[in-house]
Amino acid sequence: MRVGFEEVRSTLTRVLLTRQCSLELAEEVGFVMATNSLDGTYTHGVNRFPGLIGSIDDGLVQVNRRPIRKKQAGAMENYDGCLGLGVTNASFCMERAIFLARDYGIGLIALANTNHWMRAATYGYQACQAGMVGICFTNTAPNMPTWGGADPRLGNNPLMLAFPHSSGDIVVDMAMSQFSYGALQLAALEGRQMSADAGFNRAGELTCDPHEVLETKRILPAGYWKGAALSFILDIIAAGLSEGNSTAVIGELAGGEHAVSQVFIAIDLWKMMSQDAVEEMVDHAVKNLLDSKPITDGQPIIVPGRRRAQIREENLRKGIPVDERIWETILGLLEP
Amino acid sequence: MRVGFEEVRSTLTRVLLTRQCSLELAEEVGFVMATNSLDGTYTHGVNRFPGLIGSIDDGLVQVNRRPIRKKQAGAMENYDGCLGLGVTNASFCMERAIFLARDYGIGLIALANTNHWMRAATYGYQACQAGMVGICFTNTAPNMPTWGGADPRLGNNPLMLAFPHSSGDIVVDMAMSQFSYGALQLAALEGRQMSADAGFNRAGELTCDPHEVLETKRILPAGYWKGAALSFILDIIAAGLSEGNSTAVIGELAGGEHAVSQVFIAIDLWKMMSQDAVEEMVDHAVKNLLDSKPITDGQPIIVPGRRRAQIREENLRKGIPVDERIWETILGLLEP
Repeated sequence: MRVGFEEVRSTLTRVLLTRQCSLELAEEVGFVMATNSLDGTYTHGVNRFPGLIGSIDDGLVQVNRRPIRKKQAGAMENYDGCLGLGVTNASFCMERAIFLARDYGIGLIALANTNHWMRAATYGYQACQAGMVGICFTNTAPNMPTWGGADPRLGNNPLMLAFPHSSGDIVVDMAMSQFSYGALQLAALEGRQMSADAGFNRAGELTCDPHEVLETKRILPAGYWKGAALSFILDIIAAGLSEGNSTAVIGELAGGEHAVSQVFIAIDLWKMMSQDAVEEMVDHAVKNLLDSKPITDGQPIIVPGRRRAQIREENLRKGIPVDERIWETILGLLEP
Repeated sequence: MRVGFEEVRSTLTRVLLTRQCSLELAEEVGFVMATNSLDGTYTHGVNRFPGLIGSIDDGLVQVNRRPIRKKQAGAMENYDGCLGLGVTNASFCMERAIFLARDYGIGLIALANTNHWMRAATYGYQACQAGMVGICFTNTAPNMPTWGGADPRLGNNPLMLAFPHSSGDIVVDMAMSQFSYGALQLAALEGRQMSADAGFNRAGELTCDPHEVLETKRILPAGYWKGAALSFILDIIAAGLSEGNSTAVIGELAGGEHAVSQVFIAIDLWKMMSQDAVEEMVDHAVKNLLDSKPITDGQPIIVPGRRRAQIREENLRKGIPVDERIWETILGLLEP
């Protein structure tokens, strides 16, 4: 089924209001999560919403808490996220990084004790709207074995980099696993196999079957040892700068994934190069990429972030594709 | 054969002196490249040295030029590398990033028109020695097809992240290809196959054979589309902040790879968290990782950067393993 953006947005907002969330924060989270689905990131939009409400009901997410600054050092600060909403905590921090970057060229905010930010690209587009390069990463609960290991000891620790451009920001938003759990869940829901090995099955063999990997939680690091190593260092950088929990510690907490550590960086690109010169450089690089000889006829060449406009336009026109069961669940949440 | 560190270092330095390199810069490059081999990164140490001298002889590397500052914005600056030596340009920029980070918490230096920095980890250890987190990345000439593409349009754009620790810094130094060209060349030299698919052969099939991939230049991005996307955005960030060349433009220059763009970031970790608390956090995370249940008995679990001490100790004691043909070539370079 398809549901109009406005209906999705207002429904999510109203559900949050039933959980004693303030109007301001409920509207922001409703807008961001509806937009995530609008942009085609269904895994971290509507599909994830019942899980968020579950975390609120379990007391893991404290809806009205806001970040509190702990330390300040020029262009760098760190905050206690106070277990508040991951989305509003993250956008607060990226806004603050942008503010610092206006003064210092670059700004870095580290955030401890926060919750799932849903879609990392949200905070990339936020930086791009301010004309800035945005970089952010988060750790997670242990959900991925390291290379050579069988039990999940690493997070899949998403990394996001965004570069502003007037004809479509360039945005890379990647989990350190070859596929995110969201992508596996979506494929499982739709009865699809993954397009490449996604992890290990119970027998310890590589498999493309999302059900098998969701069962073992043995997802494959992207690039094998490379994704594992990158996950580990992003984890300790986030925990170290925020004075927060590492993935190892998050795994020891009671309850589900919460109290994660994140880093937000904004860079005032146009302090270094004029907007015109930057745009010309990117246009040339994009054209060069798109001119690739396709490996097989009709194989699409992808420019990261540049598919969003088309998906958004279609979803605005036709409504957002929503799984009927999930939508029913969300409507049911309106009565707490 | 094995050659003692001191002999390697002084030989490389002496060869550089025959190319009119100043004593200061020759000693630094000789030391860094000998150390790269000492630490086991043979691909970007002695093995690469004849190629560096070739670039000097071809006029692509201007041995005595030093970076010149172009723009300054608080914690961020950019420089023209003036086609100087990649190693000394890079260490200059990381040192300057460290200097800025002492004032601002974080410092970012972007560098245009520079040359191959050899081993990215060198500048990570440099940051760690100052007690800082170090991050750097570079673009390269086009040497990797994008995902779905058949001709090399992306660079394999190495990314490095380093985190200081008294019992061994945590350092991730990764090219965006599953294997670096250096690793492919080393395996080809030693007659080994790669441990995973490394790229495409002439028939367009995935292969582990380094010779086949070196021939087609169709190396595989790490994590397929993920490594391709990350490569692209690191490229435009480096070109944009440095006002330098993108990979697309580097591919259009006459001569081999030169005039690349790089970014160096230093973060003063201990402004945020005490050294003791950071070390405890990392020790816990490392122990948790090493406690992984191995996927098969005896499978090693790797902590990035922690194999260096043992390799260095062995190579100091026994001498650095050096390919005889390459060593002969280097000795031949002493007479220009």
